[in-house]
Amino acid sequence: MVYEHGGDIYRNKVRLDFSVNTNPLGMSENVKKAIAENIEQFGIYPDAMCINLRNAIAEKEQVGVDNVLCSNGAAEMIFAVVRAVMPKKSLLLAPTFSEYERALKSVGSQICYYYLKEENDFELQDDFIDYLDDIDMVFICNPNNPVGKIADKKKAQHIAEVCGEREIVCVFDECFMDLADGYSMKEKVPVIKAFTKTYAMAGLRLGYMIADTDFVCDVQRQLPMWNVSAAAQIGGITAINDNDYLEKGKKIIREEREFLIGELKNLGFKVFNSDVNFILFKGSVGLDKSLLKREILIRNCGNFNGLDEGFYRIAVKKHDENAEFIRELGDICG
Amino acid sequence: MVYEHGGDIYRNKVRLDFSVNTNPLGMSENVKKAIAENIEQFGIYPDAMCINLRNAIAEKEQVGVDNVLCSNGAAEMIFAVVRAVMPKKSLLLAPTFSEYERALKSVGSQICYYYLKEENDFELQDDFIDYLDDIDMVFICNPNNPVGKIADKKKAQHIAEVCGEREIVCVFDECFMDLADGYSMKEKVPVIKAFTKTYAMAGLRLGYMIADTDFVCDVQRQLPMWNVSAAAQIGGITAINDNDYLEKGKKIIREEREFLIGELKNLGFKVFNSDVNFILFKGSVGLDKSLLKREILIRNCGNFNGLDEGFYRIAVKKHDENAEFIRELGDICG
Repeated sequence: MVYEHGGDIYRNKVRLDFSVNTNPLGMSENVKKAIAENIEQFGIYPDAMCINLRNAIAEKEQVGVDNVLCSNGAAEMIFAVVRAVMPKKSLLLAPTFSEYERALKSVGSQICYYYLKEENDFELQDDFIDYLDDIDMVFICNPNNPVGKIADKKKAQHIAEVCGEREIVCVFDECFMDLADGYSMKEKVPVIKAFTKTYAMAGLRLGYMIADTDFVCDVQRQLPMWNVSAAAQIGGITAINDNDYLEKGKKIIREEREFLIGELKNLGFKVFNSDVNFILFKGSVGLDKSLLKREILIRNCGNFNGLDEGFYRIAVKKHDENAEFIRELGDICG
Repeated sequence: MVYEHGGDIYRNKVRLDFSVNTNPLGMSENVKKAIAENIEQFGIYPDAMCINLRNAIAEKEQVGVDNVLCSNGAAEMIFAVVRAVMPKKSLLLAPTFSEYERALKSVGSQICYYYLKEENDFELQDDFIDYLDDIDMVFICNPNNPVGKIADKKKAQHIAEVCGEREIVCVFDECFMDLADGYSMKEKVPVIKAFTKTYAMAGLRLGYMIADTDFVCDVQRQLPMWNVSAAAQIGGITAINDNDYLEKGKKIIREEREFLIGELKNLGFKVFNSDVNFILFKGSVGLDKSLLKREILIRNCGNFNGLDEGFYRIAVKKHDENAEFIRELGDICG
C-alpha cells in the first residue's frame, strides 16, 4: 500500500501537523462528551439505517431523509458511487483529491484528465465541457483540493446541465464547502460531504451523500451493512447540533487564511488564492523536509497528478500555530 | 433498504436482545477505558495502515503482518474480497450469513446454492465438491451462521484443496471461531474474522482478513483509505491484549449453551446442536412476535434462504438473561 495523503503522523515525528485540512477548532467538546457518555453503546450493533443521523443531516441540508446516505468517511462513498455507476471512461480534474482515481482504478475505468493550469491559478475554465465526449462519470471537487478555490457558480451549473443532458454522472465533492462561503450543487447532482473536515472528526469516519432517491438506492447496494459505527453516528448527531462551532471555525479560517497568505507572500513564496481552510503555495524543493526536521509536517504536493515538486499545501490552523509555523518557515528561508 | 439481520433494537422496544451473537461478556472494561482515554485522538486521521493493530493481530494469529488486512467490520471485508475476485459464478451455503449474497449481487455474480438439509442437521456433506463445477468463488461460514456447527475438519480441508486445484477462491468466514473450540483454515485459504463478535465491539466496527500477501494487496485496492476508525484501532489493540476475556467468555458460552439447549428441549422444541454462542431451534410460527410483546428479541430465521418460518436463532448470553428468557418462553408455551 502506498500512502499518498497528508497527515501521516504515524511514520513521522510531528509537533505541528499542517498537512491535514480539518476544522482548526479540532473536535468539539460536545462531541467528545457525547462519545464519552455513550461508550456502553459501542458494544452493540449500530443502527444500520442511521435513522437519527440521517434525520439530523436532512434537516440541516433541507432535503428529504431518503435523499441522504451515510458512509464510513467520504472515501467510502467515493468508492461506492463509482461501483454503482461502473463507468467505462471517467474524467477527473488534475490536480485533485486522489481517492477518485483510486476508486475508478479499482473498477478498471479508463481515466481522462482535465489539467488545471498554473497560469489560470488552477481554476476551472469554459473548455472543460469539451472534455466530456464519451465520458460516463465526472468528479468535481469543489472547493478543489489541493487548490482551495471554489469553482465559478455559473460554470459549475453549466457543467451539471451538460452532464445531465448527456447522461454523464457528475458528482460534486463538497467536503470542504461548509468551511467556505460557497454554494451547493445538491439540487442538481449527487453531492458528497464529510464530517471529517467540517467538524474535525477524522478519527471517527463519517461521510454522506445527498442525491435523488434512485441513486441513493443504487449506491446503498454497494455499501456493506453497519458501515457507520455507533461512535460516528453519535458524534455526527452531536456535531450537527453544535450551533456556534461552525461559525467560530469559519471566522478563524477567514482571518488566519489572510494572515498566512500575507506572511507567505512576505517570505517570497508564490501563493494561490484560497476560499477555504488550506493554501497552495510554491517554494523550493525540499522545503517540506527542512520543516519536518523541525517536526512540522506540510503536504508535499509533488505526487498530485498536475503538480510538480515544489508545490505545497498547508492547513489554516489557529493563530498561535500559524504564527509559529511562519516563524519556523522564516527561519529556514532567512 | 431492507434490513434482514438480527439486532434491530432501533425499530423495536427491546429489553433482552437474543437476536445478536456477540460475546456474552459484552465489551470489556479495558476496551471502554481505552476508548475513554483516547477520545482526543478521534479528531485526527487514523493510521491508514493500521500498523499497531495489524502487528497485534499478526502476533495473536501467528502470521506475518503483511498477511493481515483490516476492515470496517467483517461486512466491509466480504464486499472487498468479492470485488477483488469479481466472480462470474459463486457458490454459497444455504442457510448462511446473508452478506455474502448481498456482496455477490452487488457485482452481478451468478449465485448457486448448496442447500444444507435439516435431516443432516444442516451440516456440510461430502457432495459439496460436486457443486464446484464452473464456480469462481465460494464462501464457507465456519461455524456456520445461523446453524452454529463447525464443519468437519477433514471435509473443510478437502474443499480447500479441491478449490486450490481448480483455482476457485474459497473464503472461510471464521468470525465465530474464536468463541468456539475449533480450528482455522488460515494456512490454506483467505480467512475473514471480526472483533465484532469475539470481543463484543459491534458498534466500533472492526474486521480483518488473513491471506497470502498477493491476495491482501488485491483486496487492499478495493478498500477506501482510512477505512478503520481510530476508535476501532484503539479498541482492537486493547481487546486483543485482554488475556482472560476470551477464556471467560468461552466458559460462559460452554456452560450456558448446555443450559439453553436442555431447557429448549424440555419445552418441546427441536434444537440443533451448536459449537458456538448461538443456537438454532424450531418452534411455532409467530413465537418471535409473542416474545417481542415481552420486549425480547430473537432472530426469526424465516428470511434465510434454506430455512422456513418457524426457525429461530438465539444467542447464548449470561445465566440471568438466559434463565429469564427460558422463563418467559415457558410462560408463552405453557
